[in-house]
Amino acid sequence: MNNFAIGVDLGGTNLRIAAVDEHGHLVEKITLGSKIPPSRDHVIDDMCAAILGLTEKYKNSASLLGIGIGIAGILDIRSGLVRESPNLPGWVDYPVRAEIERRLDTVVVLENDANAAALGEQWLGAARNFPDMAMITLGTGVGGALVLRGKIWHGMLGMAGEFGHTTIEPEGNPCGCGNRGCLEQYASATAVVRMAKEAIASGGALVLARAAQSDAEFNAESIYSLAIQGDEDARRVFRRVGRALGIALATLVNSLNLPMHVIGGGVSHAWEIFSPAIFEELRRRSMVYAATAPTDPMAAGQGASTRKTIITRALLGSDAGLYGAARLPMMAAVTRR
Amino acid sequence: MNNFAIGVDLGGTNLRIAAVDEHGHLVEKITLGSKIPPSRDHVIDDMCAAILGLTEKYKNSASLLGIGIGIAGILDIRSGLVRESPNLPGWVDYPVRAEIERRLDTVVVLENDANAAALGEQWLGAARNFPDMAMITLGTGVGGALVLRGKIWHGMLGMAGEFGHTTIEPEGNPCGCGNRGCLEQYASATAVVRMAKEAIASGGALVLARAAQSDAEFNAESIYSLAIQGDEDARRVFRRVGRALGIALATLVNSLNLPMHVIGGGVSHAWEIFSPAIFEELRRRSMVYAATAPTDPMAAGQGASTRKTIITRALLGSDAGLYGAARLPMMAAVTRR
Repeated sequence: MNNFAIGVDLGGTNLRIAAVDEHGHLVEKITLGSKIPPSRDHVIDDMCAAILGLTEKYKNSASLLGIGIGIAGILDIRSGLVRESPNLPGWVDYPVRAEIERRLDTVVVLENDANAAALGEQWLGAARNFPDMAMITLGTGVGGALVLRGKIWHGMLGMAGEFGHTTIEPEGNPCGCGNRGCLEQYASATAVVRMAKEAIASGGALVLARAAQSDAEFNAESIYSLAIQGDEDARRVFRRVGRALGIALATLVNSLNLPMHVIGGGVSHAWEIFSPAIFEELRRRSMVYAATAPTDPMAAGQGASTRKTIITRALLGSDAGLYGAARLPMMAAVTRR
Repeated sequence: MNNFAIGVDLGGTNLRIAAVDEHGHLVEKITLGSKIPPSRDHVIDDMCAAILGLTEKYKNSASLLGIGIGIAGILDIRSGLVRESPNLPGWVDYPVRAEIERRLDTVVVLENDANAAALGEQWLGAARNFPDMAMITLGTGVGGALVLRGKIWHGMLGMAGEFGHTTIEPEGNPCGCGNRGCLEQYASATAVVRMAKEAIASGGALVLARAAQSDAEFNAESIYSLAIQGDEDARRVFRRVGRALGIALATLVNSLNLPMHVIGGGVSHAWEIFSPAIFEELRRRSMVYAATAPTDPMAAGQGASTRKTIITRALLGSDAGLYGAARLPMMAAVTRR
């Protein structure tokens, strides 16, 4: 086996740990529990035990390059602290890097989960061979990340990439961040449900209304199912997703003139339904896009050499963050060599 | 004298040429004519004669590092072509770099004028000691530039930094770029006049109406004069400038988390009037700004070490582009050494 690293994804609802080799092959993946355990020490115990298990198993045939951990929340990358995390309430100002380095005696690299996912897509997914790229992740909220010259662009304090809070409608729906009309208010799973409920409340969206009553979960996926079955009200909700993404992407393309933009996260499963609206807005709203648009924006597999502005869906699904996390210590190792 | 370079500004209405030494001292500046001459060859003749005059004069006491030229318009930096320039109609696809290198037998570096101005402010002006910064230039239109790690970020095809076409109001005023509601439609000198005329047309803006009738020029400067004299309608126009800038800056701060943003161009003379609206919007619309705002955003002279998000006015006025142009061959020389 080649040299390998351990990637940890502590971003979603469960804890996942994988051994990934230098060429990007997933050697083994462990998924722990259906939910992240409530106690912080319990999470760290489980994580370290799983990592030790994997490293013991493979250490005779290959060398370990380190451990990368993607965590949802606000991190202080430099000092290796979790500042604040919605899914990990007991982790405020917790020095997670130092603790794991102490327990396992190896290099640990932390990264925000959205950044780890972007690094994964850039290494092995939709943005392969594109050292400059942006990713927008449409989940419960809308996350984002920038990779410039092959490295995460953190900005001054690690807060860069918050494309989810691009203003789309200056007097639009209030957002948790304090702004109004953020992209997140039109393109997250939460927004999809809200917009469907607005359509129901305004009357006429009969299919949506029936589904909302009969389906106890009634989530973005239910609305997506109705949209592919042809319900016009459900489709309209996703067109609003596409329009908002198009407005945000127009500003991003005009500002950075990147060649590659990857749309990931759960809502991106509805790509076929919302993406035509993205391209329509982009052509109209971004002169940089208009000057560099591919003849067929939906065509896949375009190389970096085409010098076109590509907007495409993510390829690695929920594994993107795991691959990206494993990539972190590899990049650090290249720098050290 | 120290080593020096020649900077050329072919961005505005006249042609300016300066010798600038390695420490940023302006040794001599030549301003040619009140307007750029209509014939392309005439411009090149005049420019080369002036450059030769300066280099002959100083070459015995110092060595010339090269020539940098800032040009308004769309350039192909790599091949040294002017693709299209509003002020230079006869220059379409003109290989200006090759022509000047041939005539003067020295290194010539081209740059877009907005990028040259940003480089000037980053070297010697408001963004001194900030290797990462953005600049927004409020002139007839609204230009922009990004400097990352001390270098202009060109993007894939040299089109990055078009902050003037950030969407502020998705269904707002139509813009020449094809979009609606661009920043340029609310923050350029042209927009200031349009918004004042809108206020006049809607009735009630009596002071503005009187000025529009009596002042044959009635431009952004006239409206600024009325605003500092306290006319509420004129002040409201500039508050709209500040609000639009605040919305665009909120997205920029959230996306890149840069420490320094410089606002330049003619309209920035009204900074005292429009900047409070910028900070008001930013505090509300950017969680990254809210987390990193200086206690007094109007305080000058804050160092890079404060790790605050600074938005400030440009310091070098119309010379920024000239200094930045002279800086170009110096940066190239450092790379070569």
